[in-house]
Amino acid sequence: MHILVLGAAGMVGRKLSERLLRDGRLGRRDITHLTLHDVVAPAKPEKAGFPVDVVSGDFAVPGAAEKLIAGRPDVIFHLAAIVSGEAELDFDKGYRINLDGTRMLLDAIRVISGYKPRLVFTSSIAVYGAPFPEAIGDEFFHTPLLSYGTQKAIGELLLADYSRRGFLEGIGIRLPTICIRPGLPNKAASGFFSNILREPLAGKEAILPVSEDVRHWHATPRSAVGFLLRAGTMDLAAVGARRNLTMPGLSATVGEQIAALKRVAGDNVAARIKREPDPFIMSIVDGWPRNFEAKRARQLGFTTEEKTFDDIVRIHIEDELGGKFVS
Amino acid sequence: MHILVLGAAGMVGRKLSERLLRDGRLGRRDITHLTLHDVVAPAKPEKAGFPVDVVSGDFAVPGAAEKLIAGRPDVIFHLAAIVSGEAELDFDKGYRINLDGTRMLLDAIRVISGYKPRLVFTSSIAVYGAPFPEAIGDEFFHTPLLSYGTQKAIGELLLADYSRRGFLEGIGIRLPTICIRPGLPNKAASGFFSNILREPLAGKEAILPVSEDVRHWHATPRSAVGFLLRAGTMDLAAVGARRNLTMPGLSATVGEQIAALKRVAGDNVAARIKREPDPFIMSIVDGWPRNFEAKRARQLGFTTEEKTFDDIVRIHIEDELGGKFVS
Repeated sequence: MHILVLGAAGMVGRKLSERLLRDGRLGRRDITHLTLHDVVAPAKPEKAGFPVDVVSGDFAVPGAAEKLIAGRPDVIFHLAAIVSGEAELDFDKGYRINLDGTRMLLDAIRVISGYKPRLVFTSSIAVYGAPFPEAIGDEFFHTPLLSYGTQKAIGELLLADYSRRGFLEGIGIRLPTICIRPGLPNKAASGFFSNILREPLAGKEAILPVSEDVRHWHATPRSAVGFLLRAGTMDLAAVGARRNLTMPGLSATVGEQIAALKRVAGDNVAARIKREPDPFIMSIVDGWPRNFEAKRARQLGFTTEEKTFDDIVRIHIEDELGGKFVS
Repeated sequence: MHILVLGAAGMVGRKLSERLLRDGRLGRRDITHLTLHDVVAPAKPEKAGFPVDVVSGDFAVPGAAEKLIAGRPDVIFHLAAIVSGEAELDFDKGYRINLDGTRMLLDAIRVISGYKPRLVFTSSIAVYGAPFPEAIGDEFFHTPLLSYGTQKAIGELLLADYSRRGFLEGIGIRLPTICIRPGLPNKAASGFFSNILREPLAGKEAILPVSEDVRHWHATPRSAVGFLLRAGTMDLAAVGARRNLTMPGLSATVGEQIAALKRVAGDNVAARIKREPDPFIMSIVDGWPRNFEAKRARQLGFTTEEKTFDDIVRIHIEDELGGKFVS
């Protein structure tokens, strides 16, 4: 089978690509061809048991989607997006990539007679906007408070309608915030949820800009890849018309995150967290979802690798640090 | 103030325009200019106390929205749409008018610095898709089962985001099915809800294609106009970020509709209803919403003129038949 990954240079896209290369198969079918796309060229894998194309370019210009699907990929993982902060700062760019780009892809597929690929769309919990119930249920409405969440919510609606009309096999998954996000600290307002764990484990200081009672919704990169693989292979008849699902995760306060870090890595490591309250970040985080039920996704077989926040810390040490950290 | 009505030749658009012409004001402000637009030219009102422009054309072609708002209308009532049946049959046309047309209008407003009109968007209960709870609450999610409902749900999301970013003062209202819809019987699958009352009152036979236990959500044309006027004048600070509201209505079974007709107009009139079950229409109607809570809209001062289904029949006789019907 031929697989196309859009947004393959991003963190989740990279992890997914590595996993596909390692497995050589998706579900029961062997991978015969893999196309990796991003606005900057994803790294070309050194060894692969099948042809791998690496493509770069803007996927939201006329004709780009047609070229990307010219090889008729059987499964498309659509992870390409302008992130929330940038989509908020650059209105036109966010709508162009996140909305128009997605729609161009759907339309390019639609007009090809007899072509009906599996399309896995990564949505976001940013489709929800405060105020929230204690735990957000699967039937709670979408009132995003960011343009990014608006664009993702629109993508979900299009995906469901194009699926209903038989143009493609769409499935949308709302990923929790990925924790622990590997790599360098980034400027995303949500960055601190990972920074306060990753940096201390690497022997560095990290800034905590909010209070310890802030609650959020997390999953490991390993779980995120697992969700994508399941979405790429599952029987969609069981999903029915409601094609967009909140993925399972762990709801934890910052205090619970730090307690897990202490248990797994010791007090010395946790002492590298510096508390510097930032009213701007606090005000943004206030509007974010804290907890979900995610019943449907669990019933449909989506599971997290981690059962506790301690597991989240351990999985990072295992997958990213070769089993070692700076104690 | 200058008011623009898009979709002014449609049934609700016509009723709204007549009301604006009759009142000469919207809320506390005098109307100084009225622009009526539709794809076919709306009727030019004979007498008006202020200038009335009648404009026709496709509002979803590049440049059309810019022309329509060149006079900087203070309030825009956006009722222009391809209806559900047509949007389902003609995929491209539905998306072009209902999605692209709406977005072009929003963008034309957005790029004019310092211009921030009130935009009243008529959405639809078609944003909801079965299965439903007993009464759909204000926080129930949108899983439309028609492209029309998808397009309306996307319009709602855009309206809220453009409002949040300060480009306009948007408010979306989901109208119930209008009953009794005046005019000739139409081919809409929902047409029978009105046909079985209107036609018998005019001395004609009408076909009932579903069973009497089918429940649906109704409001009179008079109430629909009242909702629009309220949306055009209310303080939006009270609405907050959640800019799209399910309007109040009456939930009634077909049996209850017929009982009301009998009480108001007599058994002879109701005897003009012929039962001819139509499996195709029954299957469509099965997926439609039956009942809503509409708490937020009621709290925000939206009210129906009718308190019972008898009122719905009486209001039709009063507003459309000059107080008389064929007994």
